[in-house]
Amino acid sequence: MSASTYKQLEQEFRRLHAFRGALSLLRWDAAVMMPRGSADVRGDQIAALETEHHALLTAPRITRLLDRAQANSQGLADWQIANLREMRRQRDHAIATPASLISRLAKATSRAEAQWLEARQQGKFELFAPYLEEVVHLVRDKAALLGQALNLAPYDALVDEFSPGITSADIDAMFRALSRRLPSLVRETIALQEARPTLPLNGKFPASKQRALAVEIMKAIGFPFDRGRLDESEHPFTEGVPGDIRVTTRFDPDDVFSGLLGALHETGHAMYDLGLPQDWRDQPVGRDRGMALEESQSLLIEMIICRSRPFMRYLKPLLEKHFGVSGPEWEVENLYRHVTRVRRGLIRVDADELTYPVHVWLRYELEKQLLTGELAVKDLPEAWNAGMEQRLGIRPSNDVEGCLQDIHWAVGSFGYFPSYALGAVIAAQLYESLRSDVKGLDDQIARGEFGGLFGWLRKHVHGLGAKVSVQELMKSATGKPLTAACFVRYVESKYLEPAASSAAA
Amino acid sequence: MSASTYKQLEQEFRRLHAFRGALSLLRWDAAVMMPRGSADVRGDQIAALETEHHALLTAPRITRLLDRAQANSQGLADWQIANLREMRRQRDHAIATPASLISRLAKATSRAEAQWLEARQQGKFELFAPYLEEVVHLVRDKAALLGQALNLAPYDALVDEFSPGITSADIDAMFRALSRRLPSLVRETIALQEARPTLPLNGKFPASKQRALAVEIMKAIGFPFDRGRLDESEHPFTEGVPGDIRVTTRFDPDDVFSGLLGALHETGHAMYDLGLPQDWRDQPVGRDRGMALEESQSLLIEMIICRSRPFMRYLKPLLEKHFGVSGPEWEVENLYRHVTRVRRGLIRVDADELTYPVHVWLRYELEKQLLTGELAVKDLPEAWNAGMEQRLGIRPSNDVEGCLQDIHWAVGSFGYFPSYALGAVIAAQLYESLRSDVKGLDDQIARGEFGGLFGWLRKHVHGLGAKVSVQELMKSATGKPLTAACFVRYVESKYLEPAASSAAA
Repeated sequence: MSASTYKQLEQEFRRLHAFRGALSLLRWDAAVMMPRGSADVRGDQIAALETEHHALLTAPRITRLLDRAQANSQGLADWQIANLREMRRQRDHAIATPASLISRLAKATSRAEAQWLEARQQGKFELFAPYLEEVVHLVRDKAALLGQALNLAPYDALVDEFSPGITSADIDAMFRALSRRLPSLVRETIALQEARPTLPLNGKFPASKQRALAVEIMKAIGFPFDRGRLDESEHPFTEGVPGDIRVTTRFDPDDVFSGLLGALHETGHAMYDLGLPQDWRDQPVGRDRGMALEESQSLLIEMIICRSRPFMRYLKPLLEKHFGVSGPEWEVENLYRHVTRVRRGLIRVDADELTYPVHVWLRYELEKQLLTGELAVKDLPEAWNAGMEQRLGIRPSNDVEGCLQDIHWAVGSFGYFPSYALGAVIAAQLYESLRSDVKGLDDQIARGEFGGLFGWLRKHVHGLGAKVSVQELMKSATGKPLTAACFVRYVESKYLEPAASSAAA
Repeated sequence: MSASTYKQLEQEFRRLHAFRGALSLLRWDAAVMMPRGSADVRGDQIAALETEHHALLTAPRITRLLDRAQANSQGLADWQIANLREMRRQRDHAIATPASLISRLAKATSRAEAQWLEARQQGKFELFAPYLEEVVHLVRDKAALLGQALNLAPYDALVDEFSPGITSADIDAMFRALSRRLPSLVRETIALQEARPTLPLNGKFPASKQRALAVEIMKAIGFPFDRGRLDESEHPFTEGVPGDIRVTTRFDPDDVFSGLLGALHETGHAMYDLGLPQDWRDQPVGRDRGMALEESQSLLIEMIICRSRPFMRYLKPLLEKHFGVSGPEWEVENLYRHVTRVRRGLIRVDADELTYPVHVWLRYELEKQLLTGELAVKDLPEAWNAGMEQRLGIRPSNDVEGCLQDIHWAVGSFGYFPSYALGAVIAAQLYESLRSDVKGLDDQIARGEFGGLFGWLRKHVHGLGAKVSVQELMKSATGKPLTAACFVRYVESKYLEPAASSAAA
C-alpha cells in the first residue's frame, strides 16, 4: 500500500520537475534570446506557471499522500525515505507562504526591479527606496510565516530556502573566522603583489575566438554539448535541467580572461547539476543541495582549479593556438599573476577570491538589520558606505557602486548572499580532501585531464543529490564538520607564498 | 452577476493563454536552440504543460462558469458573447477526448514519429506501417468521440479542430472545382513556360547575407523585431504569441530564393497573428480563425504578393545591394520567371502554386480512406503512387518521395491537410477584393510599401480574430461566399498570360 502511495508521489513530483524545467527555459530565453519588447508577455507566462506549480505542490492531495507514505515508510529504501523528506520540505516551504503574499511579493519585486534599474541609470537611490521598503516589509512577513511553519528564526527560514539546514549560527561562525584573518591578509597580499609586477595582456580577443577557446576547455572538462549550450548574456548564469543545461557568459574583446572564467564558473555549476544522481533526476532528492553547495562547485572550478598554475600550464598553448599570442607576458607565471590579482574594489561581481567574502559579509549584516528594522531603508546608503570603508578601506563615491550594485534585494532575495561566502568556504574544505585523495591532481590539470577531479566530486558531492544535509556531506567527504579554517589555510598558502616559489612556474 | 462570472472566465482563459505561450516557446526552442540529445527532457516538459492545460480547460469550474455566463449574457458586448462562444468551443473540443485517449495518442505518435524518421532513413515503409496503424486506430476513436460531442461527422470533427466551421462538403466542393481545371492548367502552363526560357541564377549566397536581406524586407513589411525574431531551423515555421513572435526559415547558400520565400511565407503568418485584435490577445476570441485562414495569410504574402512582378521590381535593387549581382539573369522578368516556375514534382513542400493543391487533394482523399478503413495502411504506398500518377502524371520511385514525405500522419494530424488548399483558395478570393479596394497596390509593392496591403487585411481579416466564422468573414470581406472560382481565375490569368505581356517587365 505504502509503496504505491510513494509511487504516486514520485509521479506528482515528476510533473513538478517538468514544470520547473519549463520555467527555467522561459528564464533562459528571456535573458538570452527574447526580443527586448516581450518582457510583459514572458512575465505573464512565468507567473502562470509558477502559480500553477505552487497550486500543485500545495494541493491537499500531496499532503494526504505524504502523510500516508510517511506513516507507512517501512520497506522503502533509504533514497526513497530521503526523497519523502525532501518532498515534505518543498511542500512545507510552499504552503507556509499564502498565495496572496506570493502574488503581492511578485508584484512588489517586479516594480522594485524596474525602479532599481531606473535608480541605477539616474544614480538616485531615493527613486528605489520606497519600492525596496515595500519589498522589505513583505519579505519580513514572509520570513515570520516561514519561520513559524519551519520552527526557525525568521532570517534562518529565508536562508533555509536557498541553503537548507544552514543557520545564522553557522554563518556567524564563518564570518567571525574570516573577519579575523581576511582584512590583514588582503593588506599583506597587496603589498606582496606590488613587489611582483605583472606584464599587461594587451590585444583584441574577438568573441568568436574566445567562444571557441571556452568550448574547447568545457569539452575537456566534460560539459556535454549534445545536452547543453553555451551562450552569451549580460551576466553569466546557468539554467536548465541536467538533461538540457544552459550556460552563459559574456565576452569582452579587450579582456582575454573575464569571459572564459565566467564560462568556467558556470561550468562548475553545470557539472554539479550533471553529476546529480541519474536515477533521481526528476525527484526532490535528486536536486542540488542548495545554493551554498552550488556556489562551492562553481568557485571550486573557477577560483581554485582554474585560477592556478597547473591550469595556466594547460591554458598557455591554448591561448597561443586560439589567439596566436606569445612572448613573456603570455608565460605561465605572468598569466597566473593576472588571475590571482587582489584589489580593493567596490564591485562584488568583479572581486577576487580574498575580498569577495568581505563584500558578502557586509551584505549579510545589512540585510539582517533591514529585516529586523534596526536599519531603515533610507539609511542604507550611509550604512553601506561606512561598512565598506570599515571592512575594505574604500568608500563608494556614489550608490551605483555602492548599495545599488546588486539586484538581489530588489527581487526579494534576502538570505541568499551568505551562500556565496559559504560556497567559498565549502570549496576550500572539499579541495583540501580532494588534493590528498587524488594523487597527481596538479599534473592532471596541467594536461587538461579533469577525470580525477570530477570522479572525486561525483562520489563525494554531486552523486549525493539532496540525500544528506550539507553538514553531513562535509563530514563524510572531508572527515570534518563545516569549517572556515580550510579556506583560511588555502588563501594563506596561495597568497602569501614566498617570492622564490612563485617564480618557479 | 453575469458580468463578474464573465470576468472570472476571462481570468481563467488568460491563464490558459499564458500556458499556450509557454508551450509554444518550448516547441520553438526544441526546433531552433535545443541540443540534440535533450528531446526526452523537452518531451516531458511539453507533456506536463499540455496535461495541465487540458485539466484546467476541462475543470468543472469552467463548465459551471460557462453555463452561468451563457444563461445571463444580456448586457455583454458582442465581442464578449463571441468570446463566450469560443471559450465553449475550446472546452467542448478538450472535454470530448478523454485524458486516457490523449495520453495514448501522445505515446503512439511519439513512437510513430521516431519510426517515421527511421523508415525514411532506411527507405522502408514497412518499419513505419505498424506504428501508423496504431495512430490511425486511435485517431479513429478520437474522431468518433469528437464527432458525437460536436454533432459532426467523424472526419469533419477532426477538420473542425484545425479549421473551425469547415466541413467535408466545403472541401469536396473546392476540390471538385480545382480538379476540373488544375490538371489541364498545369499542362498548358508547362508548355507555355518551356517556350520562355529562364536564365539560371548562379552564385553563392551566404546565409548571413540572405538573413540581412530577409530582415530588411521583413522590416519593410512591418515585422517588429523588438517583439519578434527570425532564426533558422530545418523547416520554416512560426511560433510564439503576438507579443513575442518567432519566425524561422532555412537558408540554402546555392539558392537565392528558397530561404527568403520561406521567411516571407512565415511573415505572412506572423503578420496575421500580430494583427489580431489587440484588446483580445489573451482571450479565445482574439485568436486566429484556424489553420485555413492562417495558411491563406502566408500564401497570400508568399505566393501572390511576393511571387509577382511588382515585388521583383522591389527586390531587384535589394539583390544587387546585398549580393552585388547584376546582368540579364537578375532582371525583373527573369526573376519573375524563376519564382513562378511550374514543375511536376513529387514533393509537396517544394511544389509551386499550381501543383500544390493537387498534392493536398491526394492526401485528403487518402486520409479519409485510412480513417474509414476503406484503405489499409499496408496498401498506402501503392495508393499514393497510383494517385500521384493519375493526378500529376508522375510516379514516386520510392516511399521517401512518396507516402513517407510528410510528418502529419505520424504525429496524428489528420484533417489538417485540407487547410493548405483552403488557404490558397481563400487567399485568392481575398486578393481579388483587395486589388479592387486598394488602388495602386502594384506600385506600392514595387516601392516596398506594404501599408495599403496590411491596412486592408487588418480591417477585413486580422482584426476580426475569431469573432466570426471563416464563411462570414469571406462574405463580409469579399461580398461572396467561400468559392474556388477566384483561385481558378487568379492562376489562369497569372499562368496563361500571353507572351507579349510577360516580356514587358
